[in-house]
Amino acid sequence: MARLKLKLQLYCGDAIAMGPGKADLLEAIAREGSISAAGRALGMSYRRAWLLVDTMNRCFVKPLVETHPGGGKSAGATLTAEGEAALAAYRALSEQVERGVSGADFTALEEAILSSPRLSQP
Amino acid sequence: MARLKLKLQLYCGDAIAMGPGKADLLEAIAREGSISAAGRALGMSYRRAWLLVDTMNRCFVKPLVETHPGGGKSAGATLTAEGEAALAAYRALSEQVERGVSGADFTALEEAILSSPRLSQP
Repeated sequence: MARLKLKLQLYCGDAIAMGPGKADLLEAIAREGSISAAGRALGMSYRRAWLLVDTMNRCFVKPLVETHPGGGKSAGATLTAEGEAALAAYRALSEQVERGVSGADFTALEEAILSSPRLSQP
Repeated sequence: MARLKLKLQLYCGDAIAMGPGKADLLEAIAREGSISAAGRALGMSYRRAWLLVDTMNRCFVKPLVETHPGGGKSAGATLTAEGEAALAAYRALSEQVERGVSGADFTALEEAILSSPRLSQP
C-alpha cells in the first residue's frame, strides 16, 4: 500500500522557516532541554540540529529557541514564548490540512504503486 | 509574507514514488519527448532526471516512462498510458488537497515569519 505523506512548509525567502522536521526538533528541544540532546533523540547530528535552529531563529520576527550557555544546571536550550506559539500554530495548521486531505480519494494512485520498489533491471 | 508550500508525496517503501518534482518531470518528458531535454528544461542534470524516472518506473506496477533507443526520429522517451494516468491522478489529488488547505488559517505563522532570513549573528 502506498503511503501518503503531506509536508507543510512555510518559506522565508528561499529558506524553510517551518516544516515537519523543524517542528519535531522544537518539540524535542522543549522535552530534552538542549539542542544536542534533542538532535540525539531524533538521530540527527549536533551540527544539523544547530543549523535548523539557526535557520528558524533567523526566519522568525523573534527567535524561537534560546540557548543558555555555561556548565550549570541552567545550561541548555529552551523554547521562547514565540517558539511555543509557532510550534502550536504549525501543529494546528497541519491538523487542519490533514482533515482536508482525509476526504481525498487516492485509490487510483494507491493501487498503481507497489509496496516497495522493484530492483533495477540490469 | 511567508509562503505556504504543500508537498504531497506518495511512498513506495522508503522511496518516493510520486511527488511534486517527479510530476513536473513527467510533464516535461511528455512535452519535450526525451529525458535529457526534460531535465534541461527543469534545470536538472541528466543523471538526476534519469534516477527520478528509474525510481518511478520501479515503484509503479507498470513503468510510467518508456524510452526508445536509437538515433532516429522515434528516439527519446514518452509516457506510457500508466504514466499519463498517474500524472493526472496526482494532479487531481493535489488540487483536492489545495482546496482543503485554502480554508486554513495561517495568519499567526504568516505574521511571525520574515520575508527573508536575518543574517547570522557573529
